[in-house]
Amino acid sequence: MYTMTHPAEVASLAKWAQKTRRSPLQEMLFAAAKPDIISFAMGLPAPELFPVEGLMRASEQVLTNDSRALQYGPPFQPLKGQIVRLMAKRNVICREEQIFITTGAQQGMNLLVRLLLDPGGSVLTERVIYTGFKQVIDPYEPQILSVPTDPKTGMDVAAVASLLARGARPAFIYAISSGHNPLAVSLTEAKRSQLVELARQYRIPIIEDDPYGFLNYGDAALPPLRAYDDQWVFYVGSFSKILTPALRVGWLVVPESLMPKVSVVKEASDIDTNTFTQRLIASFLDLEDINTRLSMLRREYRARRDAMAQALREHFPADAKWEIPDHGVFFWVELPHGMDAQTLLASALKKQRVAFIPGQAFNVELSNEAANCMRLNYSHSHPGLIREGIARLGKLTSEVLNRKI
Amino acid sequence: MYTMTHPAEVASLAKWAQKTRRSPLQEMLFAAAKPDIISFAMGLPAPELFPVEGLMRASEQVLTNDSRALQYGPPFQPLKGQIVRLMAKRNVICREEQIFITTGAQQGMNLLVRLLLDPGGSVLTERVIYTGFKQVIDPYEPQILSVPTDPKTGMDVAAVASLLARGARPAFIYAISSGHNPLAVSLTEAKRSQLVELARQYRIPIIEDDPYGFLNYGDAALPPLRAYDDQWVFYVGSFSKILTPALRVGWLVVPESLMPKVSVVKEASDIDTNTFTQRLIASFLDLEDINTRLSMLRREYRARRDAMAQALREHFPADAKWEIPDHGVFFWVELPHGMDAQTLLASALKKQRVAFIPGQAFNVELSNEAANCMRLNYSHSHPGLIREGIARLGKLTSEVLNRKI
Repeated sequence: MYTMTHPAEVASLAKWAQKTRRSPLQEMLFAAAKPDIISFAMGLPAPELFPVEGLMRASEQVLTNDSRALQYGPPFQPLKGQIVRLMAKRNVICREEQIFITTGAQQGMNLLVRLLLDPGGSVLTERVIYTGFKQVIDPYEPQILSVPTDPKTGMDVAAVASLLARGARPAFIYAISSGHNPLAVSLTEAKRSQLVELARQYRIPIIEDDPYGFLNYGDAALPPLRAYDDQWVFYVGSFSKILTPALRVGWLVVPESLMPKVSVVKEASDIDTNTFTQRLIASFLDLEDINTRLSMLRREYRARRDAMAQALREHFPADAKWEIPDHGVFFWVELPHGMDAQTLLASALKKQRVAFIPGQAFNVELSNEAANCMRLNYSHSHPGLIREGIARLGKLTSEVLNRKI
Repeated sequence: MYTMTHPAEVASLAKWAQKTRRSPLQEMLFAAAKPDIISFAMGLPAPELFPVEGLMRASEQVLTNDSRALQYGPPFQPLKGQIVRLMAKRNVICREEQIFITTGAQQGMNLLVRLLLDPGGSVLTERVIYTGFKQVIDPYEPQILSVPTDPKTGMDVAAVASLLARGARPAFIYAISSGHNPLAVSLTEAKRSQLVELARQYRIPIIEDDPYGFLNYGDAALPPLRAYDDQWVFYVGSFSKILTPALRVGWLVVPESLMPKVSVVKEASDIDTNTFTQRLIASFLDLEDINTRLSMLRREYRARRDAMAQALREHFPADAKWEIPDHGVFFWVELPHGMDAQTLLASALKKQRVAFIPGQAFNVELSNEAANCMRLNYSHSHPGLIREGIARLGKLTSEVLNRKI
C-alpha cells in the first residue's frame, strides 16, 4: 500500500522553503534542553510566577457561566476593553475599535507583515534583531534596509532619516522600543519622537513590537511609540510576558480603517483567536488586580537583573561590556573583539553546562556582526542560579581569553 | 500630538491586500447574526453537545498537576500519541513523528500552503470549495486549475488526470475527501484510490482537508486518502468538530522528512500551539471515552440531518435537488436554474428570518457557477428549529419560483 519514496523527494517545496531549515544553533540548543543545564538562552518568563490559582478560578468561572466559551466566536469585546485600560497605563489613548486580538504577538506581526509587504519588497530594521521577526519576513525574500543600534540610546534614528532622505521607501519600519530583544536597550525619548516624526513625514508605518513594555525597572517608563501617533504606528502587544505565554493571546492597536483587512488575514490564518483563553484572560483581569501583579513581576525581575549585573561584574573579564537594561528580560554582553561566541557556547554547554544565545544568531542578514556578543536571559532563573551560571560562564570566558592572549 | 490623516491614506498595503475586503455577503451575514434569525449559514457545532463537564475536570487536573502547562513549550507528546490512536480508528497507520500539532486545521492548511506554493504558482482544486482554503491561497495570487465535482461521487478525478496528462504541474491538489464543504459529498472508494495514484504517479502532494471525517452517518466510513499513501498525502485534522472549536487545536499527518520545515513555518506563525489547551485536550481524552462521544455526535447529527432531509422533501419545490450527506454538517441544495440564491438570501433574512450561504460564495474563481445553489448547515440547530427554518425557506423559495413562472 505504501510507496518507498526517498524522503528528500517528498514534494517540490516553494523556493523559499527549499532554503529554510533549522539552524545548527537551534539544533545545538534543542539538544541542550536538559535539566542539568543552567539556561540563559530562551526568553522564558519565570514559571513560579505564573498566576496558577487565579487562572484556575477564572477557568471555572468561564466554563460555568459562559456558554459561548467553547464555540467559534468573534473577538471577545470585554477583553478589548481591558486592553484599552492596560494601554492607558502606558499613556496610549486608544479605543476598542482599534484593538485587534491575535494568537499571540508573533501572529500580530505576521498579520501586519502580510498586509504591508509584497514579495521582494523592502523592510527597514536594525542589523541585530529578534529572530522571530526575521522568520516572519523570510518567506517574502525582502530587500533588507538595516541600521545600527546604539547600546545606550537604541536604534540609529539618524541612519533611518538618512536612508529615507536618499529615497528608500520600505513597506514599514520595524522597531522594538523598550527592552530590545536581543540588544536590551530602550529607545530614548528624543529618538522615539524623531522616529515617529519620520514615519509621519514619509508616510511609512512603524510596526512597534512591545512585549516588554510593561516590564520596566526604572522609575519612569517611557510611553511606546504608539503614544506619539495613532495613524503611523501599528502596535503589537502581548500577554505572554505579563501573564503567561501558554495562552497565546496578544493584540494589535491599529487604525480602525485597517480592521476589515486585518480580519480577512486573521480569518485565513486560524479563523479566530481561542475563544476560551480570551475569556480566561478577561475573567482573570476581572478577578485580580493587574497592578499588583505588574509590581510583583517588576520587583522579582529587577532582583534577577541585579543579580546578573553583579555576577557579570564579579566574574566576567574586565574588557567585556554591557549596559544595565531598564526593561525586559535580557542582558547583551559584548566580549573582547576576536572572541567567537558560537565557539564559546559549544564549550559552555559541554564543560560548564550553561546555555546562552550567541549574538550572530540575531543578525538580520548573514554577517560577522555581533560574533563576539551573547544574549543572556535573566527572567527564567532564580537569582542563585543566575549567580552560579554567570560564575561558570565568566570562568570559561576568562580561560578562553587568556589562552588567546 | 495626532495627525489628522485620512483613513484611506493610512499606509501602502501589499498589492494583494489592496484588493482584499470583506465581501457584501460577509457583511450581510454579519449584520444578520441576531438571536431571532434561524441560521443555517455557518458550520458551527451544536454548543449543547460541548463536553463542558469533562473539560472542567481536565482543566482542573492540568492546572493542578502540570507546571509546564502555562509556559512556552514544545508540542505535547502525549497528545501526539492520542492523535495516532484516533487516526487508527480511520485506518490510518501513522507514528507520533508524523504528527504536527497546529492552531486549528486552518493553520495546518496555511503551513502546508506556505511550504508548497510559490507566489504566482498553480493549485489544483474543485470549482466550488471551502472559502477558508481560498483565503489561504489568495495572497499568493496563484494560477487556479479547477475541476468539477459530481454531486454523488465527488471530485472529478478523470478531469484531474486529464489536466496532469496535458502537463499541468500544480504545487498541490486540494481535496476534502469526506463530507465536502460546501458540496456535502464524499469521494467514492474508487475515486480515492485513483486520486492518490495520480498524486504518486505525478509526484504531486495532496492536501487532504478532513474536519468531518469522524462525523460519518452510514455504516462504513471510508478511510481518508492518507490511508492509501503516507508520502504524497498531507492530512489536515481537527478537534473543532468532534470536541470544541474554541480551543483551536488541529494536526497534520505529514512525512517525517517535512517536519523540520513545518516547524520553522509554525514558529514564525505563532511560536507554538497553546500549551494549555493541548494538555486540556490530552487530559480530556485520558479521562473520557472518545468512542462514546463520537457515537453520541453521530447519533445527534444524524437525527438533525434526517430532520432536514424530511423538511426539504416536504417544503422545497419538486425540482430542487440535493443528496443525503453521509458525512459532515451540510446539505447542498440546487434550486431550479435561473433562480438566484443571493437574492433569495436577502428576502430570506428580511421576510423569513432565516440565513444560509448562497453557493456562489464558494466559487474558487469569480463566476456564475452555483448561483442557484445554497449551503445549509444542520449541526447547529435543534431538529425542531431545522423543521421550522426549512419550512419558512421552502415557502419563500416556492413563492419566488411561482412568481418567476
